[in-house]
Amino acid sequence: MESTFVSLCPLNSAAATEPEPLCIFGTGDLGRSLGQRLLQSGYRVVYGSRKPHSCGPLPPGTQAMSHSAAAQSAALVFICIHREHYNFLETLAPQLQGKVLVDVSNNLKKNLYPEANAEYLQRLVPGAHVVKAFNTLSAWTLQNGPSDANRQVYLCGNSAEAKQAVAETATKLGFTVLDRGSLCAARELEDFPLQLFPEWRLPLRIAVGLTAFFYFYLLIRIVIYTYVQKGDDISFRIMVSLANKVFPIVSLIMLSLCYLPGVIAAFLQLYRGTKYRRFPDWLDRWMLCRKQLGLLALAFAFLHVLYTLIIPQRYYVRNRIKHPVVLFIKIKENKTSAFDSALAWRSDSFLSTGILGFGLYVLLGITSLPSVSNALSWREFSFVQSKLGYLTLFFCTLHTYLYGWNKFLKPTSYPWYTLPGYLLCLIVPTVVLVLKFLLLLPCMDRSLTRIRQGWDRTNKVDDGEKSLLA
Amino acid sequence: MESTFVSLCPLNSAAATEPEPLCIFGTGDLGRSLGQRLLQSGYRVVYGSRKPHSCGPLPPGTQAMSHSAAAQSAALVFICIHREHYNFLETLAPQLQGKVLVDVSNNLKKNLYPEANAEYLQRLVPGAHVVKAFNTLSAWTLQNGPSDANRQVYLCGNSAEAKQAVAETATKLGFTVLDRGSLCAARELEDFPLQLFPEWRLPLRIAVGLTAFFYFYLLIRIVIYTYVQKGDDISFRIMVSLANKVFPIVSLIMLSLCYLPGVIAAFLQLYRGTKYRRFPDWLDRWMLCRKQLGLLALAFAFLHVLYTLIIPQRYYVRNRIKHPVVLFIKIKENKTSAFDSALAWRSDSFLSTGILGFGLYVLLGITSLPSVSNALSWREFSFVQSKLGYLTLFFCTLHTYLYGWNKFLKPTSYPWYTLPGYLLCLIVPTVVLVLKFLLLLPCMDRSLTRIRQGWDRTNKVDDGEKSLLA
Amino acid sequence: MESTFVSLCPLNSAAATEPEPLCIFGTGDLGRSLGQRLLQSGYRVVYGSRKPHSCGPLPPGTQAMSHSAAAQSAALVFICIHREHYNFLETLAPQLQGKVLVDVSNNLKKNLYPEANAEYLQRLVPGAHVVKAFNTLSAWTLQNGPSDANRQVYLCGNSAEAKQAVAETATKLGFTVLDRGSLCAARELEDFPLQLFPEWRLPLRIAVGLTAFFYFYLLIRIVIYTYVQKGDDISFRIMVSLANKVFPIVSLIMLSLCYLPGVIAAFLQLYRGTKYRRFPDWLDRWMLCRKQLGLLALAFAFLHVLYTLIIPQRYYVRNRIKHPVVLFIKIKENKTSAFDSALAWRSDSFLSTGILGFGLYVLLGITSLPSVSNALSWREFSFVQSKLGYLTLFFCTLHTYLYGWNKFLKPTSYPWYTLPGYLLCLIVPTVVLVLKFLLLLPCMDRSLTRIRQGWDRTNKVDDGEKSLLA
Repeated sequence: MESTFVSLCPLNSAAATEPEPLCIFGTGDLGRSLGQRLLQSGYRVVYGSRKPHSCGPLPPGTQAMSHSAAAQSAALVFICIHREHYNFLETLAPQLQGKVLVDVSNNLKKNLYPEANAEYLQRLVPGAHVVKAFNTLSAWTLQNGPSDANRQVYLCGNSAEAKQAVAETATKLGFTVLDRGSLCAARELEDFPLQLFPEWRLPLRIAVGLTAFFYFYLLIRIVIYTYVQKGDDISFRIMVSLANKVFPIVSLIMLSLCYLPGVIAAFLQLYRGTKYRRFPDWLDRWMLCRKQLGLLALAFAFLHVLYTLIIPQRYYVRNRIKHPVVLFIKIKENKTSAFDSALAWRSDSFLSTGILGFGLYVLLGITSLPSVSNALSWREFSFVQSKLGYLTLFFCTLHTYLYGWNKFLKPTSYPWYTLPGYLLCLIVPTVVLVLKFLLLLPCMDRSLTRIRQGWDRTNKVDDGEKSLLA
Repeated sequence: MESTFVSLCPLNSAAATEPEPLCIFGTGDLGRSLGQRLLQSGYRVVYGSRKPHSCGPLPPGTQAMSHSAAAQSAALVFICIHREHYNFLETLAPQLQGKVLVDVSNNLKKNLYPEANAEYLQRLVPGAHVVKAFNTLSAWTLQNGPSDANRQVYLCGNSAEAKQAVAETATKLGFTVLDRGSLCAARELEDFPLQLFPEWRLPLRIAVGLTAFFYFYLLIRIVIYTYVQKGDDISFRIMVSLANKVFPIVSLIMLSLCYLPGVIAAFLQLYRGTKYRRFPDWLDRWMLCRKQLGLLALAFAFLHVLYTLIIPQRYYVRNRIKHPVVLFIKIKENKTSAFDSALAWRSDSFLSTGILGFGLYVLLGITSLPSVSNALSWREFSFVQSKLGYLTLFFCTLHTYLYGWNKFLKPTSYPWYTLPGYLLCLIVPTVVLVLKFLLLLPCMDRSLTRIRQGWDRTNKVDDGEKSLLA
Repeated sequence: MESTFVSLCPLNSAAATEPEPLCIFGTGDLGRSLGQRLLQSGYRVVYGSRKPHSCGPLPPGTQAMSHSAAAQSAALVFICIHREHYNFLETLAPQLQGKVLVDVSNNLKKNLYPEANAEYLQRLVPGAHVVKAFNTLSAWTLQNGPSDANRQVYLCGNSAEAKQAVAETATKLGFTVLDRGSLCAARELEDFPLQLFPEWRLPLRIAVGLTAFFYFYLLIRIVIYTYVQKGDDISFRIMVSLANKVFPIVSLIMLSLCYLPGVIAAFLQLYRGTKYRRFPDWLDRWMLCRKQLGLLALAFAFLHVLYTLIIPQRYYVRNRIKHPVVLFIKIKENKTSAFDSALAWRSDSFLSTGILGFGLYVLLGITSLPSVSNALSWREFSFVQSKLGYLTLFFCTLHTYLYGWNKFLKPTSYPWYTLPGYLLCLIVPTVVLVLKFLLLLPCMDRSLTRIRQGWDRTNKVDDGEKSLLA
């Protein structure tokens, strides 16, 4: 919904009545798609081509001419050519003098060339005003106009007037324009269409790895063990029971992995006695993907909730209900039918902590939506993400402890001497919570705060300027 | 949170100390609301009226004078008059020479006039700088200041300076300004307040139609049939059981309707051998409402999930549990109490596919939030919406197949020779998935890719420019 | 993703190759953090300090000199000093003549000083171009670059060129720039980092108050009463059963509190016969926090749903299932095992209304996301928030009535002569719905509409301008 340029279209809006001609260099797909779209928006379009008479089918109503002729006929030239073919433009420098060149090109992969295509173009034709634009749009969009994720046109360039002209055209095509500043931003714009969730790769790998590991681990512990020992086949458990053991485990571990780097960083700063030395790279990278880790953890928690809630619907469970011996997935030891108040307490707190934890989880997820987090001041954001985040971690860990309770005492919990899954997944969160607790101790907290306010063990700063951060 | 203009308020911020006077033409509701608001923000306000002495109650502290006198007293004039009464402004042209005229008017319905009100105004007073602004706000907002959905003021005009002046005023009133470019955008701004979910109409009609049809269909099949044949009244099923059969059916059909047009389009392109011919209108319209279809499908899926999860809470079900003969909504055939492992497999996979499908469903919904989809490159967006979308469709279809399983074999499934609902709702998704599968076959895929890259069966394009899209 | 300035970086992008020097006044934490970041972005940094030779550790590669010397060396000066120490800048006025001064300071609390720091600075050095910027960022961000909630740099100032220069720097640092207009906006920017959910305070207090009250009320009614009378300990109910009684109660009350002020306002306008008199402050304040009230209500409803859905998982319930006497939380009176169709109807409609109510609830929550509500016209937004809002309230109230049904007839529902919770929570919503119904009566509706369109009982406005709002 944002449009961000200052329009300079002349007061006598002749532009609206009699369309100025636009020129497109290159009759490839992009050129034709763009031309078609421009025609539909009421522009006159002229193509510049190497061989104007055999350049394939062009949108009806447009004509093709030599590059130089086409350039002369319009003030705005779209360069829909591969960067490899740019060099010939150098010879057109005189005709392109003072023209606005719109570079729409993308590369097949990142860092293919030392400089951005647009900067290269500017170097070739110094007299022209190069504007990088439209390259973040799909050809489908260029042909058919804006759609959901394709409403925004990013542009950058060194000449304000040139950008305004391009922006004007873009809005006429129905797009929303976002000015990204000078041509130095061109590389960023050219890399944008190439990215496919770069910051999600690492967290996804971690998630997949953990899931696979625990799946096989529990498969062996539960299904295979039962088959080998008792000889009865409970492989159907793979679908729900196992999934519902793996998902919460992965979710809890990943949630704690969001908060581990922060704790490590704090101890590192305490140890170094300063905050002015950079962290090791692995820690930096880790910190940068905390948001993604958290969101994946939320996804797993969400699945865990659904898997838990459909338990009563399972044939397996319904079938059990009808029999004298009631055995349930969660609390296996309870076979006596006498009412045990302590058990009721435990079962209910187990469920409550889980629900409250999940509720906070969802809240964290909502605040990490771009539009929500942008509306928050960083004080509010850090309050939610750190204070509420640790509360979430605490609830979920408690939830797991209540689940385990005294299971770890019974030898039956250690088939083939393997630890139960919930014990394994409790390690990291417990460590994080303990470390965080240590950091909250007055002595630790005080010196950490001082360090974060710029204090340096080696030499103190004059007070007048120190507490500026407070 | 965005404000998008370059402020030009003078360096000596006299503006802040001694308010410049603003003029409002028209003492109607809008005029008074606006005036009140301006006063509260510390402006001096002067009204221009046809009959200054009998123009109804004005906000205290303002005075009314003749239009010409008022015009002279201020550099900025808000036109709070109906378009029908604009004509008299022509006579004021000399006094309005060089003034900034803010057109806040809206029309009662779209396309009432050949040109936008603001453009009409500009034509009447060519010497003035017309700016379209504030018309997207409710009068309530104009009177009481920004509220949630009313934070943004869209403006457009041909003079940058004029727009900056208006923008400055708007920010002083606490609004966020979005520049929509030249006056040509006025029509768009004037149509904005009139729209009431235009792009939702068709999908909503489809949803309502499908729901109504299946409701009655199942009502006859289940409730009425039982009543006629066995004579017992199970009308209470309408509330939950029936709803929980209808919602998933509608959801699945609508989800597949999101992906059907894409498949049709692909086959159309293959058949035509080019992508440069426009699709038939019905297909275009269909494609444009895919997002809304999907979101409605998600809503129905959401209800289906809730309806399913509360099944154990139903008196009807709880009552059954206490009786020897346990019959359940989902798996009626299972009356034997011997444990059937195959049945367990089926029931669990049925539930799992449902959960995973719903999880992906929700993911698709989240990525279609404006702020999220804007943060995605079109490559990421299309990956999510198409790849994950088809996966979702696949899971949900599988979920339904597992639900049906071998029901269709039993004659009892065909009361009055009618097909079960789940069979009817499987038709469309199956077709879509099969067609999609065909498109993924190497031969099809290859030629489709070539067409999408601009290849044309009639005549090939030179390679140099072709693969620009890849 | 938005950047909003017009770049003016010179055509020959020398800036990119040979970095211009930037000057930082103040070697405190903020100064050093900022300097470090600027260095990493390829700028040359010069510090101005009172005692250049003993100003603590500076980032390697920077040098410290006297304020005046530093000022001369750069065109852009970051003022990283406390406002208390600004006064000495007055003496530097000649050296700072024409320079761009970036005021990054914040105060420890609001309204500490009569004027904004930036405005004070401008007054001290009238010859310089003061720009307020970067103050909304955390020092962590200034040191380590943009992160999620810290991508945006708000700036304001009276000189467009000065703002462009700062904006250019900010984008080079990887930030997104939002221009907030002239220096008059400085105070707003300075207050921004201090706020911690101001508009959430009141709603949160209400929520906590209501929750606490009903918790204790039901604790006495249910747990303590049972213990005193029958002597058996059902304290475990606190965890789930009680919570699941309190949350829906609070949720319904808070939802109705969203709509009560609107109804009161309407009656007030009807009584006064005009809309041009301001509402009492308490009503204004109330209306301003309706959104927050609604979102909290949604949160409670969400918890209620989860608590309800896990009921079958509770040990307490599972334990009951295995016994002849089945008694459930929701419908206690049903101990007979004969199937009661009326009861089935009631139980199912009770669940259905709850689900549909919750579904609409969620829809309301989604439309109040900033990015969604910004995409809606105010007509659409008010349609959703008022029409659908009342429908939600209606469903939830009906849900509660169906829950209560004829309980209120049985004396056992009044232990110690206390009313059941659901009766208490039905009061407000019922009142709201009744009042709203009255307002929908033709006579009321007509006169209210006329008042809202600017009609005034004292004196009518001429029709020509009245219906401008319609």
